[in-house]
Amino acid sequence: MPQAPFVPVIPAGGAGTRLWPLSRRSRPKFLLDLTGEGRSLLQGTMERLAPLTDQAPIVVTGVSHEAAVREQLGELGMAAVVLAEPSPRNSMPAIALAAALVEREHSEAVIGSFAADHLVDDQESFARAVASARQAAELGYLVTLGIQPTFPATGFGYIEQSASAPAEHGDPVQGDEALAASGALPVARFVEKPDRERAEVFLSTGRFLWNAGMFVVRASVLLDELAAQIPPLAHGVRELAAAHGTEQYDEVLARVWPRLTAIAIDHALAEPLAAAGKVAVVPAGFGWDDVGDFAALAQQLRAGSGADFRGIGAPDRRAADGDEPPGAGDGGDVRVLGSADVDAVSSRATVYGATDRHIALVGLDGISIVDTEDALLVLADAHAQDLTTLVARLDERGLGHLR
Amino acid sequence: MPQAPFVPVIPAGGAGTRLWPLSRRSRPKFLLDLTGEGRSLLQGTMERLAPLTDQAPIVVTGVSHEAAVREQLGELGMAAVVLAEPSPRNSMPAIALAAALVEREHSEAVIGSFAADHLVDDQESFARAVASARQAAELGYLVTLGIQPTFPATGFGYIEQSASAPAEHGDPVQGDEALAASGALPVARFVEKPDRERAEVFLSTGRFLWNAGMFVVRASVLLDELAAQIPPLAHGVRELAAAHGTEQYDEVLARVWPRLTAIAIDHALAEPLAAAGKVAVVPAGFGWDDVGDFAALAQQLRAGSGADFRGIGAPDRRAADGDEPPGAGDGGDVRVLGSADVDAVSSRATVYGATDRHIALVGLDGISIVDTEDALLVLADAHAQDLTTLVARLDERGLGHLR
Repeated sequence: MPQAPFVPVIPAGGAGTRLWPLSRRSRPKFLLDLTGEGRSLLQGTMERLAPLTDQAPIVVTGVSHEAAVREQLGELGMAAVVLAEPSPRNSMPAIALAAALVEREHSEAVIGSFAADHLVDDQESFARAVASARQAAELGYLVTLGIQPTFPATGFGYIEQSASAPAEHGDPVQGDEALAASGALPVARFVEKPDRERAEVFLSTGRFLWNAGMFVVRASVLLDELAAQIPPLAHGVRELAAAHGTEQYDEVLARVWPRLTAIAIDHALAEPLAAAGKVAVVPAGFGWDDVGDFAALAQQLRAGSGADFRGIGAPDRRAADGDEPPGAGDGGDVRVLGSADVDAVSSRATVYGATDRHIALVGLDGISIVDTEDALLVLADAHAQDLTTLVARLDERGLGHLR
Repeated sequence: MPQAPFVPVIPAGGAGTRLWPLSRRSRPKFLLDLTGEGRSLLQGTMERLAPLTDQAPIVVTGVSHEAAVREQLGELGMAAVVLAEPSPRNSMPAIALAAALVEREHSEAVIGSFAADHLVDDQESFARAVASARQAAELGYLVTLGIQPTFPATGFGYIEQSASAPAEHGDPVQGDEALAASGALPVARFVEKPDRERAEVFLSTGRFLWNAGMFVVRASVLLDELAAQIPPLAHGVRELAAAHGTEQYDEVLARVWPRLTAIAIDHALAEPLAAAGKVAVVPAGFGWDDVGDFAALAQQLRAGSGADFRGIGAPDRRAADGDEPPGAGDGGDVRVLGSADVDAVSSRATVYGATDRHIALVGLDGISIVDTEDALLVLADAHAQDLTTLVARLDERGLGHLR
């Protein structure tokens, strides 16, 4: 059983351009209710972590979203520390700053960093995995939760477990034994998003897990390792943490923050520490998704996800990536998020309706529709990744206000 | 060469529910600019007929559309007689009333009835076909223009030409010779919309033409034949024509109109007269379409039709019913009707935009989108016929105001 205090850290950033025009610069993905459960992804993340600790989580977000984040946390009535980044510096500075705050208060505490905009299906399985990860983190490891892959995804990075120690090496060393007892396994390396062929090889070995970007680590371990890798970054966040809560904080923030190295935790710590044998992974079977684009969102909504969707017609039992034509039945399978009034014939589609217009669908198969006051998107789920192209050129078309 | 005066008759009716929400009860198909040429289908029909005669055409429309029809005719600056039907009675009463008006003015005149909401591509070919039809009509035939079929359509009725007279019957009779000189051919029968299999048989014989609902006939012949088939109908419209232009007209209309048999000209006259050998057809090769649904409209817009469409990306050279995936190119082939601002990636689609919203399309293949203030339609062209199901149940959903 883990002993040290546990403090959740929630980096709340990312524009979510592949969910435009549902997500906008001013209302990014983590602030949205994408599941129809009446809470945003941020609120869902907070509620998922609350039962695992009595410590107030730390939410790190951009200064332009601080007010909205505080408002959503206020709706939950949960205590949280909100840190506002003056400018985006990627994930490492955000997590390191939170770690430095935690280290100042509890020198032995373990932090767990979980993105604000992911979905987790099975709360109990998640709680068990976090408990294992905390135990391994108390041994000094940087621990990640690795998702058991269910298909050869090309949209996620992968974590490769170390091959089992050959029998002739004799008994495992003490550290390995304690790690094994926690339920975590040593990590060989992190791998960037593969192509389809490599992803299939990964799955066939049984040694690869999806990298969900969840890291559990003793705050002091994170900062000490960071001090070895990128000393000014570790020094900067410790200086900020020392000033936090004082009158000087804003001045220190304005001076220190812009100089912090903008880098992802994967590159700054996870990859070098894995090479040094200091990373462990807890294989986890809870349903997880980063809801990275409309295809992923459609799949989530179709899977049910516990929400009260207004499915029209009989549910569709085919896989989301099936290529059969829509059912001959009248309605098909239409999922509606939002207040839209939708009627459909023979359609498999997902509708995000933010206006009071009547929406009629005929004969669609695997289409997502986002109906907002100033922008309408109609997208084939199979081409969901191509949305970035359109969003990227809004500015050059003089439509930057729509982003 | 035809000798008798020629008066075009334009029945302007039909709701066009298969083009909803572009067409509405209050703004039916014939009032819409469906080709992006800056004129409605009614205006296009008027302009197509104007060069063929110096007689003012007669437009017959519903009383609720009379004002809009007069306004559109006013924009053209063309003289026309507008007859308002107090209630819909199908096509025979409308055409017969126009014929009776013509008969009163010119006892030998020929009328030509052409629907207000069809498209014709080749004006010269159309003019030649009408000239042939007028010549045959002056011989006493009910003449129709039959369109050379280009594919085994199941959405149109067909006209079967009589088999050639066998050689052993000797010289053709005088009537047949004069008919042949006009370029028209005797008709064996009219056939309702066939299924695919029958349509293919029709095409293989080379004797079948599409029934475009275009009839050319001496006004007195039409009324005399109608008097033989449905005497009260012929009598009623002649009574109305006699009263037209007098102070009693409204009173006579209110009394007579509701009693007129509601029937299509095909059933009232064309079919029985064909059986009696009194119908002739002019085979015509001008591009024609009744723009019956969004699939037909998309095909028209894709064919160019002379309009200035804002195609996005490289034009698509595939047939409209091709089943290949959309091109790998960036834009694909998107046709935009209306003021909508559209951007697209890899999409073959048609957009009818009536709002100022930005419309983004990703990866669509054969999709029509109609974006209006109170209703949004997204439809797979291959299922265009199913739209009627949705429109029919607007009322039961309490959305009758959207029709």
